[in-house]
Amino acid sequence: MLNARFSELFETAVTVFPVSTGTAANALSLASCARPYGAIYCHEEAHIHTAEGGATEAFTGGAKLVAMSGRNFRIEPSSLRQALGQAAWGVRNRSQPDAVSITQASEYGTIYPLAEIAEIGAIAHDRNLSLHMDGARFANALARLDCSPADMTWRAGVDILSFGATKNGAMSADAIVVFDQDLVESLSYRLRRAGQTSSKMRFASAQLLAYVEDRLYLRLAAKANAVAARLGAGLAALPDVQLIAPVEANLVFINLPALAINRLAASGLQFARRGQDVIRFVARFDSTEQDADEVIALVHRAIAGG
Amino acid sequence: MLNARFSELFETAVTVFPVSTGTAANALSLASCARPYGAIYCHEEAHIHTAEGGATEAFTGGAKLVAMSGRNFRIEPSSLRQALGQAAWGVRNRSQPDAVSITQASEYGTIYPLAEIAEIGAIAHDRNLSLHMDGARFANALARLDCSPADMTWRAGVDILSFGATKNGAMSADAIVVFDQDLVESLSYRLRRAGQTSSKMRFASAQLLAYVEDRLYLRLAAKANAVAARLGAGLAALPDVQLIAPVEANLVFINLPALAINRLAASGLQFARRGQDVIRFVARFDSTEQDADEVIALVHRAIAGG
Amino acid sequence: MLNARFSELFETAVTVFPVSTGTAANALSLASCARPYGAIYCHEEAHIHTAEGGATEAFTGGAKLVAMSGRNFRIEPSSLRQALGQAAWGVRNRSQPDAVSITQASEYGTIYPLAEIAEIGAIAHDRNLSLHMDGARFANALARLDCSPADMTWRAGVDILSFGATKNGAMSADAIVVFDQDLVESLSYRLRRAGQTSSKMRFASAQLLAYVEDRLYLRLAAKANAVAARLGAGLAALPDVQLIAPVEANLVFINLPALAINRLAASGLQFARRGQDVIRFVARFDSTEQDADEVIALVHRAIAGG
Amino acid sequence: MLNARFSELFETAVTVFPVSTGTAANALSLASCARPYGAIYCHEEAHIHTAEGGATEAFTGGAKLVAMSGRNFRIEPSSLRQALGQAAWGVRNRSQPDAVSITQASEYGTIYPLAEIAEIGAIAHDRNLSLHMDGARFANALARLDCSPADMTWRAGVDILSFGATKNGAMSADAIVVFDQDLVESLSYRLRRAGQTSSKMRFASAQLLAYVEDRLYLRLAAKANAVAARLGAGLAALPDVQLIAPVEANLVFINLPALAINRLAASGLQFARRGQDVIRFVARFDSTEQDADEVIALVHRAIAGG
Repeated sequence: MLNARFSELFETAVTVFPVSTGTAANALSLASCARPYGAIYCHEEAHIHTAEGGATEAFTGGAKLVAMSGRNFRIEPSSLRQALGQAAWGVRNRSQPDAVSITQASEYGTIYPLAEIAEIGAIAHDRNLSLHMDGARFANALARLDCSPADMTWRAGVDILSFGATKNGAMSADAIVVFDQDLVESLSYRLRRAGQTSSKMRFASAQLLAYVEDRLYLRLAAKANAVAARLGAGLAALPDVQLIAPVEANLVFINLPALAINRLAASGLQFARRGQDVIRFVARFDSTEQDADEVIALVHRAIAGG
Repeated sequence: MLNARFSELFETAVTVFPVSTGTAANALSLASCARPYGAIYCHEEAHIHTAEGGATEAFTGGAKLVAMSGRNFRIEPSSLRQALGQAAWGVRNRSQPDAVSITQASEYGTIYPLAEIAEIGAIAHDRNLSLHMDGARFANALARLDCSPADMTWRAGVDILSFGATKNGAMSADAIVVFDQDLVESLSYRLRRAGQTSSKMRFASAQLLAYVEDRLYLRLAAKANAVAARLGAGLAALPDVQLIAPVEANLVFINLPALAINRLAASGLQFARRGQDVIRFVARFDSTEQDADEVIALVHRAIAGG
Repeated sequence: MLNARFSELFETAVTVFPVSTGTAANALSLASCARPYGAIYCHEEAHIHTAEGGATEAFTGGAKLVAMSGRNFRIEPSSLRQALGQAAWGVRNRSQPDAVSITQASEYGTIYPLAEIAEIGAIAHDRNLSLHMDGARFANALARLDCSPADMTWRAGVDILSFGATKNGAMSADAIVVFDQDLVESLSYRLRRAGQTSSKMRFASAQLLAYVEDRLYLRLAAKANAVAARLGAGLAALPDVQLIAPVEANLVFINLPALAINRLAASGLQFARRGQDVIRFVARFDSTEQDADEVIALVHRAIAGG
Repeated sequence: MLNARFSELFETAVTVFPVSTGTAANALSLASCARPYGAIYCHEEAHIHTAEGGATEAFTGGAKLVAMSGRNFRIEPSSLRQALGQAAWGVRNRSQPDAVSITQASEYGTIYPLAEIAEIGAIAHDRNLSLHMDGARFANALARLDCSPADMTWRAGVDILSFGATKNGAMSADAIVVFDQDLVESLSYRLRRAGQTSSKMRFASAQLLAYVEDRLYLRLAAKANAVAARLGAGLAALPDVQLIAPVEANLVFINLPALAINRLAASGLQFARRGQDVIRFVARFDSTEQDADEVIALVHRAIAGG
């Protein structure tokens, strides 16, 4: 039933596996694409590289993540082409390119245009690599691009998708959506031995079905995006504030003097720090315009010294 | 909060980690006890050995399960003592004993008496092994033994527990309960990289809290046990039926001629087969005496030839 | 050059990889045949199961060894057929059959007749399993069967061979001989990352070439076999001595009262113990008839009480 | 005997394990230092990171290599201090710092001064990290620094050493030398299951003993260093040639126009390419001054256009 509904949603036959976390979705997806001696190309800020405790290395049996820089926290097709051109294909002492992983929307809330995904997909497939999409903020990207799920995935070359619902309102209900059916068998066994095959899968399925029903997930995401856009615009207008990346989804990263950050923290506002002078705000499905305005006011005050 | 509540429940300081499945609970618990070159002693019918797709081998990095026979599907202390006595301690080409895993209630619904757990615990600790309990049917065993959770675990030497709630009414909410605090740090990292650390842990926690509130879990289990007892007694009284093991929890295994099994399947009744002539019935938290009586009648009819 | 010479020797195109030990040969061969969620069928006394420290589990990423009993320390075709017939094919919580491993000559010096290897090979291939031969005592078996290397391997269905030379006179020069060329690519990468690809491979190759030149390896093995046969016959004629298995290669296992074993050890003779009352003698390429006679005399005296 | 001789050589109690390759030495050394969720800090050009096919990831069970840039292909103490200062200690979704690995002499033939090793050692130990030295060119570094093996290792904080002999004249005889005895037990099991424990270890041991006897290894290395120094000086004096790094051991890397590289290759000279316009020469224990002069002449001619 989940397969049927998602096949309809994605306009092609897909296989869906509910999993308990985005980390499990990413690492097991990649383990189905990459050999133990394989290499996986990703952005240097990719969640799989920086914040999943080595899950991908563990589940692949030791594959190597090749982290690349790239403007606005996205892999650039030209860099990927160059990296693959220089890879030591067939050389036994080098990990062999097996997969590319992109995050849509990215860890910094930027979004790959469809043409760019397609270009990355073409580069990957030319070399027989699989293309994985970490869709932790899939709905936010989809809402922003205003395209179909099919357009943003398999039509652009995506072979396997970590379909994130948890960050957008679901109750620990993420999933792997497989477009390349050759990956299904290996994945199904890997899920089982990873302890990701629940005897009560129906509860996770029910959530996922409700999540996409009547475009609920898109409405939730669009709302979060709108709040983030308002927040981003408001913050960018303040003195001493620079946006770290264009606000295209539900994330806002700004540069702020450390002193102001400390004042802001003292005000009781919740936010995450990234290094000395960068902070992150996340707009959620239940955030409001008023929330955004309050944050802007608090940041303003923190800068002003109060 | 979960730690506090479970520490109260277990009358000692415990650390609790919600996980998505019993397989994850077992394999990650054991990965925190056993080295990659370690050996884990279990019954030959243990779920970790027969039905988890090699999860323990995977998460430990290749530890060896040493499967032992044992009456009524339980490890016997004397066999364990003998096996450890004969182990090639310190010999580099042999996996080294690191842990013992027992299932309470066992995969066939039998139950270790407290004294037996304590004896196994003492044997394990004498050799510096950890004792893991697969508590997929923890509540059923507890209800049957009518003892405290503490008595059935750490007081008898259990170091780490897979606390199963899913089979007893919860919605995919299992947990690891750690008594030996030395295991906590390694386990916490392993959980994270296994994709078992959800950002919405509060939903799992809420279920677990509700599950133990007012002894709900014991009441559910006692009910299932009672239905199974009635079913077992009724079936045992039929001609051509042998119980495979004493009915001490919520599982009933019987020997039945293959022909009768086929007739029974044709009647539409749900049950699992084990080999040619053994079948299993599971009494659930929502099963009733009437359910039991119906099954008895159906089996009777199947034997009688109709 | 090594490939060319061994292809000639085996009368078919083979790929040869020198490795530093038999354990590396076995575990990496099997890692090229078995998936992490795969199962490998072997005899319960197989070296890979009992004496390699979990190497196969480690290199396969956690595959399961399914150990079977079998007369004279050999897998029996009928048992294998039955085991595979009962395997839970396609069931996600069970390790999936991927390979069969036989040891020729076996760990107890018994030998699979060609027809038996062929039968096992056919059973394996019918199910799409690979057949691995642990040839730690390959030359001894070959000398005994007096057949060609081709007959004892690929013509009987062997896909990949651990070609042992170390136990038969070489200086740490074992090798993997691959008949199924589909296994070569994966294996070559796995060898490299296992640290088994030496920059000075020519030294290992030189030994292997010399080893098979002019049937040297067969002459060495035949000599050891003859000494073992003399030893076995002599020991079997003593009172209180039972052979544990027919002496078909260079190994002799006997049952002896523990008291006699202790006396024998006190005499300064070198031998290995297996449990309480079993001991092993190994005839080497440089053992002599006189060595055998001395051992017989010493055992005789130990039994007699002196 | 090997332990005794090397303990004398290193002026402290060491445990020595012969292994078949430098890759095995490195990856298994690091596997004894780093947890599966650990991180290992190394230079971005470290052999373990670029040329061992993921061996370290495989043997550690998925630890992460954190590759750092650094002048002259050496880790800089200040960078290491900064990296460890910024590490997310105790954060469950980040790999945890466990070890530092330095290569002496480095992959580009540069050498860490003793004070720098000691500084790196102190930084590592302050944070409870182990310090591993990849000594693929150990003798070359020692000959250059003209210090004792003890000074360059444990006295400067090295806990475990890959002692390379193969590149300096031995016949596939590398070894792990362990200073921190806490690492020995785990390592000894890991070696066994990696297939690195040969039953004929005496042959490897014999080579290693001969190798260090009468400072043979230092004489061989000093000779290679001298040839490399002559080669480096000669090449640096040519037009259009830049040394990539100071020539401190037996390696010479130069920048050369691609056209000249092609001409040089056509001349039949053996060398390795690194990217478009960098080539490497290796002076071996049996290279001569005349070899160096011939190379200089050939490069000169290639530049000149002939």
